Amino acid sequence: MSPRQQIVPVILAGGTGTRLWPLSRQSLPKQFLALVSDHTLYQDTLLRVAAGPVFHPPVVITGAEFRFFAARQAREIGIDATVLLEPVRRDSGPALLAAAAYVEARYGADTLMLALAADHVVTDPKAFLACVDEAATAAQAGHIVTFGIQPRAPSTAYGYIKCGASLDGAAMRVASFVEKPDAATAERYVSDGYLWNSGNFLFPAGLMLAEGARLEPDTTAAVTAAVAKAQEDLGFLALDADAFAAATSKSIDFAVLEHTQVAAVVAGDFGWSDIGAWDAVHAVNPADEAGNVTHGPVALTDSRGSYVYSDGKLVAGIGLEGLSVIATDDAVLVMPSDRSQDVKALVARLSASRRNEVSEHLKMHRPWGTYQTICRGERFHVKKIVVEPGGTLSLQKHHHRAEHWVVVRGTAEVTLNGSVSTLHENQSTYLPCGSVHRLANPGRIPLELIEVQTGSYLGEDDIVRLEDIYARA
Amino acid sequence: MSPRQQIVPVILAGGTGTRLWPLSRQSLPKQFLALVSDHTLYQDTLLRVAAGPVFHPPVVITGAEFRFFAARQAREIGIDATVLLEPVRRDSGPALLAAAAYVEARYGADTLMLALAADHVVTDPKAFLACVDEAATAAQAGHIVTFGIQPRAPSTAYGYIKCGASLDGAAMRVASFVEKPDAATAERYVSDGYLWNSGNFLFPAGLMLAEGARLEPDTTAAVTAAVAKAQEDLGFLALDADAFAAATSKSIDFAVLEHTQVAAVVAGDFGWSDIGAWDAVHAVNPADEAGNVTHGPVALTDSRGSYVYSDGKLVAGIGLEGLSVIATDDAVLVMPSDRSQDVKALVARLSASRRNEVSEHLKMHRPWGTYQTICRGERFHVKKIVVEPGGTLSLQKHHHRAEHWVVVRGTAEVTLNGSVSTLHENQSTYLPCGSVHRLANPGRIPLELIEVQTGSYLGEDDIVRLEDIYARA
Repeated sequence: MSPRQQIVPVILAGGTGTRLWPLSRQSLPKQFLALVSDHTLYQDTLLRVAAGPVFHPPVVITGAEFRFFAARQAREIGIDATVLLEPVRRDSGPALLAAAAYVEARYGADTLMLALAADHVVTDPKAFLACVDEAATAAQAGHIVTFGIQPRAPSTAYGYIKCGASLDGAAMRVASFVEKPDAATAERYVSDGYLWNSGNFLFPAGLMLAEGARLEPDTTAAVTAAVAKAQEDLGFLALDADAFAAATSKSIDFAVLEHTQVAAVVAGDFGWSDIGAWDAVHAVNPADEAGNVTHGPVALTDSRGSYVYSDGKLVAGIGLEGLSVIATDDAVLVMPSDRSQDVKALVARLSASRRNEVSEHLKMHRPWGTYQTICRGERFHVKKIVVEPGGTLSLQKHHHRAEHWVVVRGTAEVTLNGSVSTLHENQSTYLPCGSVHRLANPGRIPLELIEVQTGSYLGEDDIVRLEDIYARA
Repeated sequence: MSPRQQIVPVILAGGTGTRLWPLSRQSLPKQFLALVSDHTLYQDTLLRVAAGPVFHPPVVITGAEFRFFAARQAREIGIDATVLLEPVRRDSGPALLAAAAYVEARYGADTLMLALAADHVVTDPKAFLACVDEAATAAQAGHIVTFGIQPRAPSTAYGYIKCGASLDGAAMRVASFVEKPDAATAERYVSDGYLWNSGNFLFPAGLMLAEGARLEPDTTAAVTAAVAKAQEDLGFLALDADAFAAATSKSIDFAVLEHTQVAAVVAGDFGWSDIGAWDAVHAVNPADEAGNVTHGPVALTDSRGSYVYSDGKLVAGIGLEGLSVIATDDAVLVMPSDRSQDVKALVARLSASRRNEVSEHLKMHRPWGTYQTICRGERFHVKKIVVEPGGTLSLQKHHHRAEHWVVVRGTAEVTLNGSVSTLHENQSTYLPCGSVHRLANPGRIPLELIEVQTGSYLGEDDIVRLEDIYARA
């Protein structure tokens, strides 16, 4: 790669990925799941653009509800990211324009910014970097460059790009962006040389802002103000809520790309997938001779071309053909893999029935660790709680429930009505209803404890937070 | 029905039903599951032959490991059954001959005995009783009468009966019994008027014993001795183990029916099914317009002819066609319904891998109630324990684990190193490693408690039983 100014990678990590239900849910969406490697998709994205001669340290923009995932998962892989928090959801347009405003303010208008979705897969990172280098040339020459993907099949799951005249280097002008086609149109697009629109972009931050100001002046003014008034908060940069809320919810394609005259495209072939649905997850993982991909304890007999994911329980299949089976602790999805696009509508229908399995996981993530419901009855609720080393729950009390804690691993520091004690493995304590208490892990290994709640009302909302180091009080 | 001597119903309840895995397992086989009504198959069988003008109180014969199911489930529906315990498995021949020996000894050799499998379904009990009446006429005339079923399809899952000359009344001689055929042979059998062999029989107890003594003299002598030396034990009648062990393992068809000259058959059409596999469970339950049968929280979209069973977790299906999905707490089975017969081989393969899910349920049944693993870690194990009113666990100790008990419902009587105390809802106690303890429910409602075990070895076999009211010490 030729020497040039460093690029600022910006990771857009605010999506909810409902088409990968039941694994991906609002409480833990797909970018924060390990679907194709030991790292999560978000971590793999960060590692792909690790700081060095080519890249500045990354900027992440995500929803406030995902801030601890974004920070913890970056920390786990030793990456120091600036995390911008969107106070409300406004789709990718405002998010990307806000990030551009941040990059311009911090590094200058000419700085190249690489906007990447946090939940895409790239199996050939070297080819990806080469493609970034080609795009940088066109971006420095004044283009917003999108990465077009050589279609592997006439997919109806992607928008397409019709390429125009060649520019200097490998880039071409964009003749037009076209929406997700039907099957026949997709065939025609592929034979006419159209590319898949990957939704990842490279551009000078100031150019994107200028195009935004021209095409979406109110939104661009709103997000620029939201960045200017942003507040540091526990290591995050929280965009100003009032200002950001004035932005119009719109994708960056609709807001800018489809209307600007400076769009360019470089064609890439770097094993890209947006793994937007289960068939894509199947395709991106290595299959056995029969075309099956399995994860977890799975026993297949006489089966072909199937994807089976289990997060723990035994899944047995006999005679499966082209089927997807996804089994989590509290939900199972079964469908022919070619119905993968229909999961989104299924989730919408299930949401209407207000089932917990739609949006929440049994295991819930908190800044201090996790908790998981393991048993529930009419007047009791049993949870397994894991507190990371140094983690501290809020100082709290409950009006309607008492709690029993049994430490099964590690060391707990328990504050109960002002007095502090230490519990070791196999010790327990009782927290009467109304007592003011706090749990912390002063040790070096995760603290695991079993909590048995009893009472007539056991909702998560019966919690009075008196103090909280994560500012949730 | 014409007035005649009362018939003794004998329920054979010793099977293990592996083709209905993962629901039916060695630790709780299909006859004790509610698969087609609110009652278990065993209960429905008992209710079909309830004591009254036609029937004596029932006799049940089952394996010692199932004795508490047999007793409790009979009690639940207010039926007073005599339960004979087979000390070892010897297939249906010895079981049925032993029951015949018991019936002859108790009621006399001419007494009619109706031998019924505990795990069959009859959807038209009136037609069944009419058929029993027809069979009784032939039985009293000196026949072992089998119930032949008018085939609904050329099934390869059943043995067939070729009918011979008509006898007095509705019965016919059996020309021959034939094994489960291939598809082409099954077609021919059906067009030739063969009947399915249901494996249920009516006969004078003494006649069956005489035929047994002639055809299987050693086995018949063995089981007769086992009945003569049987011991009353906690309300069960335990056949003598040494005597019974000398019987040869053989089905009653192989042992007697296929060789005797006194076999007769009555054709029945009473909605019979042996629900031997999942496709049969599907067929016997009422389906919706699309041919789907579901049980539990199931959401099907665009699906036809499918069977989906969930014991609690949400199961969602999109575009299912002729598929069976069975989801239990710890295992999921997916297959085209026409592969239902292959489950037996799958279970055999899984058994070789020694997975718990094959033979045990998460919820285990004990004479005093149930326990269920709800969470397991390297050095801890959490169970939910339910003790029925009056239930008492053994006086016991553990070498390698300590236990914490938290009562979440009802009242516990806890004996700890000789002193007895009472715990109410929301109270807890600690049982150190090596302590001698006992748990009982002195109350009127089920006692529910959460047990947290900690220690370096947590196997079920770390239990020293010092006393046990169920004679397991």
